[in-house]
Amino acid sequence: MAQAVRIDTEKSAQRIGRDIERLAGPDYTRSSEAICRYAYTAVYRNTLDYIRGQLTDIGFDVDYDPVGTMVARNRPPSERAFGLGSHCDSNRNGGKYDGTMGVVTALEVCRLNHELDLGLPLQLISFVEEEGSGFGQMLLGSRIMAQRVSDVDLRELFRALDDGRSFWEHAADAGHEPQRWRESIRILDGLTGWIEMHIEQGRVLQDAGDRIGVVNAIAGYVHGDITVTGRADHAGATPMDLRQDAGVVAAETILELGRLARKAGKGTVGTVGEIQFAPSLINVVPGEARFSLDIRGVDEDAFHGVAQDIAAFAEERAQARGMKATFSQRQSVPATPLDQRVVSALEESVRASGQPYRLMPSGAAHDTMCVAPHVPSAMVFVPCRDGISHSPLEYAEPADAALAAQVILNAVRRLLPD
Amino acid sequence: MAQAVRIDTEKSAQRIGRDIERLAGPDYTRSSEAICRYAYTAVYRNTLDYIRGQLTDIGFDVDYDPVGTMVARNRPPSERAFGLGSHCDSNRNGGKYDGTMGVVTALEVCRLNHELDLGLPLQLISFVEEEGSGFGQMLLGSRIMAQRVSDVDLRELFRALDDGRSFWEHAADAGHEPQRWRESIRILDGLTGWIEMHIEQGRVLQDAGDRIGVVNAIAGYVHGDITVTGRADHAGATPMDLRQDAGVVAAETILELGRLARKAGKGTVGTVGEIQFAPSLINVVPGEARFSLDIRGVDEDAFHGVAQDIAAFAEERAQARGMKATFSQRQSVPATPLDQRVVSALEESVRASGQPYRLMPSGAAHDTMCVAPHVPSAMVFVPCRDGISHSPLEYAEPADAALAAQVILNAVRRLLPD
Repeated sequence: MAQAVRIDTEKSAQRIGRDIERLAGPDYTRSSEAICRYAYTAVYRNTLDYIRGQLTDIGFDVDYDPVGTMVARNRPPSERAFGLGSHCDSNRNGGKYDGTMGVVTALEVCRLNHELDLGLPLQLISFVEEEGSGFGQMLLGSRIMAQRVSDVDLRELFRALDDGRSFWEHAADAGHEPQRWRESIRILDGLTGWIEMHIEQGRVLQDAGDRIGVVNAIAGYVHGDITVTGRADHAGATPMDLRQDAGVVAAETILELGRLARKAGKGTVGTVGEIQFAPSLINVVPGEARFSLDIRGVDEDAFHGVAQDIAAFAEERAQARGMKATFSQRQSVPATPLDQRVVSALEESVRASGQPYRLMPSGAAHDTMCVAPHVPSAMVFVPCRDGISHSPLEYAEPADAALAAQVILNAVRRLLPD
Repeated sequence: MAQAVRIDTEKSAQRIGRDIERLAGPDYTRSSEAICRYAYTAVYRNTLDYIRGQLTDIGFDVDYDPVGTMVARNRPPSERAFGLGSHCDSNRNGGKYDGTMGVVTALEVCRLNHELDLGLPLQLISFVEEEGSGFGQMLLGSRIMAQRVSDVDLRELFRALDDGRSFWEHAADAGHEPQRWRESIRILDGLTGWIEMHIEQGRVLQDAGDRIGVVNAIAGYVHGDITVTGRADHAGATPMDLRQDAGVVAAETILELGRLARKAGKGTVGTVGEIQFAPSLINVVPGEARFSLDIRGVDEDAFHGVAQDIAAFAEERAQARGMKATFSQRQSVPATPLDQRVVSALEESVRASGQPYRLMPSGAAHDTMCVAPHVPSAMVFVPCRDGISHSPLEYAEPADAALAAQVILNAVRRLLPD
């Protein structure tokens, strides 16, 4: 096993910072207030073009899959390589770091490999449409790659938020070949492993004072809604004991969700992020309450258990007062365990750096969820200030990304056969 | 004291039903789906014209106050009379009975007085704009009468929901004299008492099987909002114990409001009818929660106490988790005690009828709140089906209104000096 490489982190931080700032300039975002870029806009093409230019400078061949995911290699397509990357689209009112910092850090690993003449076979992937800003579909590029969509989705159902035209039409207009989307899985051919770096989008690392998170699982989740049907009554004319107040059942369920998630443990979390009362008037007892559920965790039994229990709780509380509550699921995504060998290699590399780190799950979804079933995968998190993400206020330290680049570089060296 | 009069309730119910249906016809509502009439529309004028026609047929002189409240008398203006009435504007998606049934029942009392040759001196009032559908101001006609508005309100601040022009302009265009609004109080000159009949807009009478509610007080209320400021965090990336979830404080406060209102007793009620989370996304912990408070009762100390306690509770619960909660009041209206002598006369009259009744407060606001400080007043409620009001589904039995007409007629006979 080769000795761990120590890079010039200051220089790497500078280059990463420069790339981040460059890609926040007016040619790379549709908004002057935030980062706003998505497939297949001019600012998105400019962004890929910049990455491509940087990669061709260090000897990479750059290509695209049939829907526009960028794939760059320093080895011929038939040969083995280690995969690195993330996405560089943003949400519509986004920051500079979400996704883009992962791509730019992967680029920095490629640069270091080149500069230090390490001879590592590498492949960089920048997935298209992770955020769903173009077509309202999260992880779209990686789901297409993983065959987690259908022809009908792409031809008919997934439509541009801007003009309502189909994904298919937009991809074709942008010069891609959506009819060949099933071949996208071949971008994983020859990959012996995959590491995605991403900002944490939470505050665990900041609060603990850790500079690196080695991610050993990505949470699965249940997304759904509970609708409580009570009876709208005049707020003045209806005594407390004659009410069927749907809002009260909603409130009880919100509190019970917190209790159930804590009781389930294993990092299980539960959130009510949306709520609506009807008719929504100050002087009318809510006749209906609708609220969303986001229940996540890396332990399938734990988070599915919470989802079942909270639906049953709401039904029981509603029935006890002559009301009705129904749960309807929007989506359920299984937890993604990550590869223990890749995780260990990352841990060993970060330990060699002497910097504080922690093993942690990812609560947020990432493209790696679609890669991990096919290729041994893990992720690296860096802190982001106050956990703020999906906002122009998002900030992450280029120095932490440079440390991540070193950690990834050394992990890949450990993982590749000598 | 004269023997209680027994009327032909079937005949009265028929006339009341006929008037109600007439005033639900296409000439009297702007909507084909609901009753929608407000000052100073053609359908509103048609409605007053119909009432006026009925009253002039039985010898009443009909006049209008300076803003369009209708006043009809069977005695010269200088002489004493007993006041009866309500309003016949509707909310924009209203039913046939709210207000209108009170005016039509007052009309029926006038008819009975004429038919039975009882010789009672009567004055019917139909207040303009009780519902606020024209200018967004509830009880507008009676508040103008009671001098509870200002010149600036009428000239500038109160503007038509339809076209944004001022109340003043609309009233003048309709042929009234808004500059003389302060004289409106004179419509109470000579009144020795006032009784308003109204549908209950709640389900207390229906649930108890009572046909008449004798209203001995009108609830006052506090309207306000609590805003909880927490911290918006990624629902997946933020462990339960690192959250400042504004929605959880909102939920706790909703439940506490119910507890406090029940504990306060004396008919005190508390309602959260509106709620909003921000940013209102399924996968983001609510960084802010805003919810309305409607707290009412006939006991000032009780309902103001609940308002104070709930604001303090929210602040305390927010602070306990490093969040902030602030209460801001929209409006506070004192409770209106009604006149014991008028109430007793109504009770004696309904007891004489042998029909089931109850003494009760009104939780809803009514024009009588503006009359009661000037003239000994009370109200009579009749059941409305399932408590539904402010809806095309509203229904009340003409037979109950006919009973109310008999009760009111006899009460007025008791109250007027022989």
